[in-house]
Amino acid sequence: MTFNEKLTKRWKERNSLVCVGLDPDFERIPVHLKARKNPIFNFLREIIEATADLVCAFKPQIAYFSGQGAEDQLMLTLRYLQEHYPEIPVILDAKRGDIGSTAEMYAKEVYDHYGADAVTVNPYLGGDSLEPFLNRKEKGVFILCRTSNPGAEDFQSLVSKGRKLYLVVAEKAANEWNRHGNLGLVAGATYPDELADIRAVVGDIPLLVPGIGAQGGDIASVMRAGLDSNGAGMIINSSRGVIYAGTDKQFARAARRETEILRNSINQHR
Amino acid sequence: MTFNEKLTKRWKERNSLVCVGLDPDFERIPVHLKARKNPIFNFLREIIEATADLVCAFKPQIAYFSGQGAEDQLMLTLRYLQEHYPEIPVILDAKRGDIGSTAEMYAKEVYDHYGADAVTVNPYLGGDSLEPFLNRKEKGVFILCRTSNPGAEDFQSLVSKGRKLYLVVAEKAANEWNRHGNLGLVAGATYPDELADIRAVVGDIPLLVPGIGAQGGDIASVMRAGLDSNGAGMIINSSRGVIYAGTDKQFARAARRETEILRNSINQHR
Repeated sequence: MTFNEKLTKRWKERNSLVCVGLDPDFERIPVHLKARKNPIFNFLREIIEATADLVCAFKPQIAYFSGQGAEDQLMLTLRYLQEHYPEIPVILDAKRGDIGSTAEMYAKEVYDHYGADAVTVNPYLGGDSLEPFLNRKEKGVFILCRTSNPGAEDFQSLVSKGRKLYLVVAEKAANEWNRHGNLGLVAGATYPDELADIRAVVGDIPLLVPGIGAQGGDIASVMRAGLDSNGAGMIINSSRGVIYAGTDKQFARAARRETEILRNSINQHR
Repeated sequence: MTFNEKLTKRWKERNSLVCVGLDPDFERIPVHLKARKNPIFNFLREIIEATADLVCAFKPQIAYFSGQGAEDQLMLTLRYLQEHYPEIPVILDAKRGDIGSTAEMYAKEVYDHYGADAVTVNPYLGGDSLEPFLNRKEKGVFILCRTSNPGAEDFQSLVSKGRKLYLVVAEKAANEWNRHGNLGLVAGATYPDELADIRAVVGDIPLLVPGIGAQGGDIASVMRAGLDSNGAGMIINSSRGVIYAGTDKQFARAARRETEILRNSINQHR
């Protein structure tokens, strides 16, 4: 099964567009886990167990592992997901971007070493830099388009020949780079108008939408802007809003509650 | 000493603008090293020993380590450099780019975990995404500006208000983001005209220049285009051209010879 088939199946079977982002900061995990072996993995394992039936995808953020020298715990997390939840697509949020043989190495890191189903990548270096990812036909590739931060304006909103840069990226993605039908785009929930512009340009390509929850994106506006022609088409991610919903031994229960609320709020607007 | 002080000292003391890029592909290292423990580290250790007195910097490419599950050998390489060559600036080529707390984690990865002196970053997400790196005043930050690959044209050369995107990046970098004087730019050797445009905009900011050697950049044109007002200002990188110059037990000697030729060719044009 390709990434897109897995995702579409999951959207339908679970009636959920929610993705739980796995961004584990050791400083913020519950105290009782900190003294145990592999605290980050154990934290995430409980989050995964508590939310798996509610999500369309999980999105581990690689920086939280490499920044804490915990690549081994990322591997444990991916292996755990592959063993216990092979039906849930895993998007490794890595925002990689480099050229030629270096990009090939990043594709190996994400797809072969960690075995993720999909990855996020940065388009600044242009189409040839994305090919090593896109050529893995069975895998998914989410290209940064309009990000959720205030600084996104600096370059992504520059206008060239009447088109904002993020729309030029969206058009190239949809019209030139999606030969294998495995491409998606990242479009932040904090800019619903831009999200709508992107959807208008790319048809039913899946959109990974961060910025709900801690970053303040509004669900109703996002849903109006981003749904595809099947009333799906979005992977709406919440990380901190879910995984730090509780701080004590009940943290996994709190994470489940937040995920459920988010899924239901989203589904009210579909 | 800050990164820039270390770099400037090194440029002068060694009379060299050459940077050796450490991009170790296990498939390409000499056969006699492959069966040993930590083959990648041992390969690089010999390259470092053979070229250290000829270079202004080393630039390990993180993808070659993470793509082969060899982060531990990257750590060994960094520790080796810090112990034996603390005077040589080390630029970790990682092309990171993310927002807020995630960017903070990447800064930890590069500066704290690996202890690199500088990093390469991607500007697509805008100024706020670069702050966690730039706020480390004693460290260097090289922002991708005009990359050396053909696909660089796709977005970097789009014209907005009469300015190409890579020049907008260069201007913002030089005029808004360089509060701590620790910023540099990446500008490929394969586009000397663009390199000259960038130099004209950014004054004496250091330029990291990949694309010499295997990628075909021409030294004379690069030197005309990129020198700063002191006849320095460039870190001219060769990776594959140096580290795979020899394929047998004499590989380190071959690497030294290539580095020496490159340094001398560059210095003929200063």
